[in-house]
Amino acid sequence: MDGSLTGLGDISAPGRVAGPEEGISEHELALAARNHGLPLEALRYDVTPPGLHYVLVHYDIPATDADGWRLTIGGRVLRPLSLGLDALRALPAVTRRVTLECAGNGRARLTPRPVSQPWIVEAVGTADWTGVPLTALLAEAGIAEDAAEAVFTGADHGVERGVEQDYRRGLPLTTAADPARDVLVAYAMNGAPLPPQHGSPLRLVVPGWYGMAHVKWLHDITLTDTPYTGFQQSVAYRLRQDATDPGEPVTVIAPRALMVPPGFPDFMSRTRVVRPGPVALTGRAWSGHGPVTRVEVSEDGGAAWAEAALTSDPSHPWAWSAWHTTWTATPGLRHLTVRATDADGNVQPLTAPWNRGGFANNLVQRVEVLCIPEASATG
Amino acid sequence: MDGSLTGLGDISAPGRVAGPEEGISEHELALAARNHGLPLEALRYDVTPPGLHYVLVHYDIPATDADGWRLTIGGRVLRPLSLGLDALRALPAVTRRVTLECAGNGRARLTPRPVSQPWIVEAVGTADWTGVPLTALLAEAGIAEDAAEAVFTGADHGVERGVEQDYRRGLPLTTAADPARDVLVAYAMNGAPLPPQHGSPLRLVVPGWYGMAHVKWLHDITLTDTPYTGFQQSVAYRLRQDATDPGEPVTVIAPRALMVPPGFPDFMSRTRVVRPGPVALTGRAWSGHGPVTRVEVSEDGGAAWAEAALTSDPSHPWAWSAWHTTWTATPGLRHLTVRATDADGNVQPLTAPWNRGGFANNLVQRVEVLCIPEASATG
Repeated sequence: MDGSLTGLGDISAPGRVAGPEEGISEHELALAARNHGLPLEALRYDVTPPGLHYVLVHYDIPATDADGWRLTIGGRVLRPLSLGLDALRALPAVTRRVTLECAGNGRARLTPRPVSQPWIVEAVGTADWTGVPLTALLAEAGIAEDAAEAVFTGADHGVERGVEQDYRRGLPLTTAADPARDVLVAYAMNGAPLPPQHGSPLRLVVPGWYGMAHVKWLHDITLTDTPYTGFQQSVAYRLRQDATDPGEPVTVIAPRALMVPPGFPDFMSRTRVVRPGPVALTGRAWSGHGPVTRVEVSEDGGAAWAEAALTSDPSHPWAWSAWHTTWTATPGLRHLTVRATDADGNVQPLTAPWNRGGFANNLVQRVEVLCIPEASATG
Repeated sequence: MDGSLTGLGDISAPGRVAGPEEGISEHELALAARNHGLPLEALRYDVTPPGLHYVLVHYDIPATDADGWRLTIGGRVLRPLSLGLDALRALPAVTRRVTLECAGNGRARLTPRPVSQPWIVEAVGTADWTGVPLTALLAEAGIAEDAAEAVFTGADHGVERGVEQDYRRGLPLTTAADPARDVLVAYAMNGAPLPPQHGSPLRLVVPGWYGMAHVKWLHDITLTDTPYTGFQQSVAYRLRQDATDPGEPVTVIAPRALMVPPGFPDFMSRTRVVRPGPVALTGRAWSGHGPVTRVEVSEDGGAAWAEAALTSDPSHPWAWSAWHTTWTATPGLRHLTVRATDADGNVQPLTAPWNRGGFANNLVQRVEVLCIPEASATG
């Protein structure tokens, strides 16, 4: 008991970066134990099975009731709407295959490390999302002439950096109402109702944007005539150098390639073991800026690069591309690296540009591989 | 490149415990990012949705092919069998609701901390498993008179503590062939084919035993006339005080109760916030030794206890029981604790008995809750 603790500030500290020798803290571990990444071997699936897709829940997964759920659309609209699931399902539906990545992916590899959800590289997944185009709902509601932004509210409730809140994000109408952006109010994932952790019964899907924009457990859309300046827009999800820097907003996904780690792993170090000879390397690559145009692989940590073969499916422009190449393994410890380049000319960096939130960090993946002959394999 | 590294011992270290001030290491984090627990609010579901059930994969999730899958049954049997999925599905099926817990649950709270998968308390889940009773398959194969043990081999391959292996565990026939134990070869979870991470297409389910016995990606059962002494039996999953101690094997699940953390969380500390007044507390409790007979809750860290109401469903003897009580919150920081007692008289401890692997540790859960009036809620 401590009667002197009576405010949220006592349990909800400001953001911080870890000290020089500070290991992962118990708070970071508690987040890692709840929120999980894609086991990298699951890059083998074109569409990620739901339990393997990355999950980031800011607060708790809310106890929602699909039968009684209402999506309200109001604010700067001509005809405010309140729609149940049946009404949404009765509207023309579209399905979009979308690669979704957490804006904090890669955070745990930064030095100093921003203290938050400690992703390494695995906060990604690809799913087929089915729902109603947001443009159709906004057309039904009628956009008022002075509307500039759509604000999306989810049902998850918590405290963050001292501020009690429902999770809420804004999106400029130039994006939210752009038919080419394919923004969806989704009620199904891979052909089934949304699982609880992915937003049951409704979520927003904003193809090409980092995960923070895809508001889960969505129950309200309000159009406003001014930009939204709430916590998740103006405090969190900014690229800042220090706490006083207003920073730039986090928006679309920077290019990234990941490989299925080849061979088999050591349990504890996750270091890979392969035999000498040709080794098939496969993986995925994606960018929110446009198609991935090149994937390169290095076996020496980035000194020399070889181009991989790239396969994109034009019917799924928002989904990752597949890549493959063959690497000839020779005995010794190798450091495989892969990098993507997109149509906008963005290339993954070999050293991470740092920001205080650890956002949009697309440092190349490195995979340590020990190549040993079969004979010495049973140590 | 380091040509001097040529053996598995260089990448696969012996087990160790963390140093006095050592935070969670990058290797522990890499395991936590892949293997995930049950978000504790998901204790609300009688049957855990698959993506929320805990997952522990020793090596990689193998790329299995259900169509070509064969389960072989051999060794000390009269009629060796090789069965495809269709043949298994054609046999009489049973469904059992089973609570499954990782033997390493609670490991990260031990001092000193054994370095391995760093579970806090969340490595649990309950599912409806459908498949063929192992007793039926063994009857079909015919148990030789000298058979004493069944050895189960999965398809996941890796290195652990220097030993290259397929995941493999033995079970005495007194357990494996005991009709009252309900051991299953399961092909469905919650009415759907097994997800990849839960053993697709086949896994063993051993109700009441910790997770290490429930071999996933199961492809072979071999009966032997001597106890199995492979790595996962004689090296891993032993209760040892030091590295030279042969230790006792880890077997059935020790009693544990968990609560749904009340109120709402702070993002980073996961500390809970509630308002003054009555707060419903709910959760689950289970034991592999027999039914849970009592659940008690303390609001002062274990000094005083109040008994909770307990609901068990006799049709699901292997599943967790539900419990609930009402707590009257008063302003201040509180430390809620819950403990279970089972029919064998086992009670959860308030201080953790230590072992070097961090196994079967059922130290009580503690939940830190800040109770504050509504007015001071928007910090």
